[in-house]
Amino acid sequence: MSDFRQRALDYHAKPTPGKIRVELSKPAETVTDLALAYSPGVAEPCREIAEDPNAAYTYTGKGNMVAVISNGTAILGLGNLGPLASKPVMEGKALLFKRFAGLDSIDIEVKHRTTEEFINTVANIADTFGGINLEDIKAPECFEIEQELIKRCKIPVFHDDQHGTAIVTAAGMLNALEIQGKDIGDAKIVCMGAGAAAVACMELLIKCGAQRERIYMLDRKGVIHTRRDDLTPHKMLFANNTDKRTLEDVMDGADIFVGVSGPDLLPPEALSLMAPNPIVFACSNPDPEIKPEVALATRSDLIMATGRSDYPNQVNNVLCFPFIFRGALDVRATAINDEMKVAAVEALRAVSKEPVPESVLAASNAESLSFGKDYIIPKPMDPRLCARIARAVAEAAINSGVARLEVIPDYQ
Amino acid sequence: MSDFRQRALDYHAKPTPGKIRVELSKPAETVTDLALAYSPGVAEPCREIAEDPNAAYTYTGKGNMVAVISNGTAILGLGNLGPLASKPVMEGKALLFKRFAGLDSIDIEVKHRTTEEFINTVANIADTFGGINLEDIKAPECFEIEQELIKRCKIPVFHDDQHGTAIVTAAGMLNALEIQGKDIGDAKIVCMGAGAAAVACMELLIKCGAQRERIYMLDRKGVIHTRRDDLTPHKMLFANNTDKRTLEDVMDGADIFVGVSGPDLLPPEALSLMAPNPIVFACSNPDPEIKPEVALATRSDLIMATGRSDYPNQVNNVLCFPFIFRGALDVRATAINDEMKVAAVEALRAVSKEPVPESVLAASNAESLSFGKDYIIPKPMDPRLCARIARAVAEAAINSGVARLEVIPDYQ
Repeated sequence: MSDFRQRALDYHAKPTPGKIRVELSKPAETVTDLALAYSPGVAEPCREIAEDPNAAYTYTGKGNMVAVISNGTAILGLGNLGPLASKPVMEGKALLFKRFAGLDSIDIEVKHRTTEEFINTVANIADTFGGINLEDIKAPECFEIEQELIKRCKIPVFHDDQHGTAIVTAAGMLNALEIQGKDIGDAKIVCMGAGAAAVACMELLIKCGAQRERIYMLDRKGVIHTRRDDLTPHKMLFANNTDKRTLEDVMDGADIFVGVSGPDLLPPEALSLMAPNPIVFACSNPDPEIKPEVALATRSDLIMATGRSDYPNQVNNVLCFPFIFRGALDVRATAINDEMKVAAVEALRAVSKEPVPESVLAASNAESLSFGKDYIIPKPMDPRLCARIARAVAEAAINSGVARLEVIPDYQ
Repeated sequence: MSDFRQRALDYHAKPTPGKIRVELSKPAETVTDLALAYSPGVAEPCREIAEDPNAAYTYTGKGNMVAVISNGTAILGLGNLGPLASKPVMEGKALLFKRFAGLDSIDIEVKHRTTEEFINTVANIADTFGGINLEDIKAPECFEIEQELIKRCKIPVFHDDQHGTAIVTAAGMLNALEIQGKDIGDAKIVCMGAGAAAVACMELLIKCGAQRERIYMLDRKGVIHTRRDDLTPHKMLFANNTDKRTLEDVMDGADIFVGVSGPDLLPPEALSLMAPNPIVFACSNPDPEIKPEVALATRSDLIMATGRSDYPNQVNNVLCFPFIFRGALDVRATAINDEMKVAAVEALRAVSKEPVPESVLAASNAESLSFGKDYIIPKPMDPRLCARIARAVAEAAINSGVARLEVIPDYQ
């Protein structure tokens, strides 16, 4: 067994199993404490909530609680291992919510027979929480699940594998385009992969100015085009009216390659066909679509991002999801809408253009970091992210009319 | 607004809303910590659990996590206020699990149309947890819900309003009978109330030796007898083949009165009809079926218990439920069966016969407490309860074949 594998297992097992625990946030030492916390005192907040459901935000932990919910059908890159096997990931996500944004978070693993049963189960328990983070649910079911739960729940429902990835990708991409001197409206974009993250990335890039007809998406069968008869509804949205069929066909003259597919699927020969000053986001994890050293040896005019922490420009959802929920919950938003996602993109872009605090350099093992080809996205653990993104998202929620509170906290 | 009412609301609202929070139980400070807690390290425990579901107890918090689940149909004495309004009670129960037994616990409030939908929802999320405490679900649905969930879940499912009440009642009752010099097998028992707690109390007393045909249960219409045609299945189990119809009819010569009904429903005249050395458990809360001062003025030979903390002999579920789950989870029991409930009864009885620690006297504002008419049940906050009950329950789980681990922790 490898050392890292053993360390990962030990981390989870010792000294106690798991990564999160529940604690009291109120005193419970005296008989009086217990009379307030439980019977008879607890009847008072119950009556208040029965009269006005919003009182749940005043008297219970609902407003600071995010549920991380999965059915385990697409766990990391491991595939469908079932709900219980997804629990370490969901507890890990709960840990990240707490660590980075101070949100209380617990995991719920759901078994089900039909997609409808999954939706019903989550909708039935949703009022317990302030927000729901859906995680590791396979495409195409994830699209229907998220859309239906957004309709049925009065709290934000956010499939992070789609939108978290899309937000960080869009922020890095817009910065990369700026550095390369390109306009997103003119860019020819190749997207390898047609799953949840791919669809969400392309939709968000379109909201940021990309032209749908200049996007070429590929699945396992090659280019997704209008004459194919095997397309799911979400692939249909990206069916291009083109006679191009292969990766090489579409890479010719492309400005942008986004990979959310699998390891080593982008050959150097295809990369060499791209337009001058290209941008490659090879996000397959842990092994990217092309190794950065190979890519940069092939094209020195490249800007490159991956999903890995050991190369520059890591596309990492933790840069946004804790802070988006922080901002959304702080103004009791009923949803996380496109305006809030775009606000998060812009906040991420802005942070990456500012001087980097010493603490971030130390945590990132970097001597210096400044906006440029090797630093288009902020680093995880940058303490500025929470306040900046949360504030931007909260403001966007208020301005777009989905906030139930209109006071923005004094984020530090 | 009364001072206590305002204090209860303030306790819940300030400084942060609610009573419980989530914390990290593992380090998450460095890039390496995060690589172990989340991607890529987290894939290792996922793979282990996919191969062997029991590994979830080793690598996640499942084995120490109790869900407190309600639909809010019978909240305390407040009735059906709906799921969200029950949240303060459920968070309070979670607080008690942590405070008294060190169990991590979170609340889930479930909305649903049919009983079947409630059952499906809970069954679908059950694998997330080590055990499920059902709470404040109205009769008769609570019986079907608990029975069906016990069948469908691989973890303990326990409706505390039934069995927690029954266990503390049985412990106090057997001690009271001992003091009064009576045998439970000969006792004539009157039970006022026919809801969840009443049925569970009588079933457990029968398991402890009571004769079913010597039990007279009353609902709002009077004595439940075999010629009534309006009985639910659970009331049918207690239909007595008798010509007695009123409370006074059955109180004549009764040894035991158990009230789980409503305030002031036991008139002193009925009490005076009881046999010598009677026992009255008037558990309606906050106002008992008869006030203790009235009862004792009527019958000086009485042993009396209530649900209140300001009188002797408080029947309080917190005396057992945290510790029953502690013991059950520690040996990964698949259920909380009758053997485990009876073991909890015997452990509670035994603790009440032992000298009381100074700390308990101080916390109870008592100068002395010794086994007798005014001390038939241990006090809440008695630190001996956790170890004694958890050990007894764990042993009973092993001996009755429902434990998946056969090692009992060294409870302190």
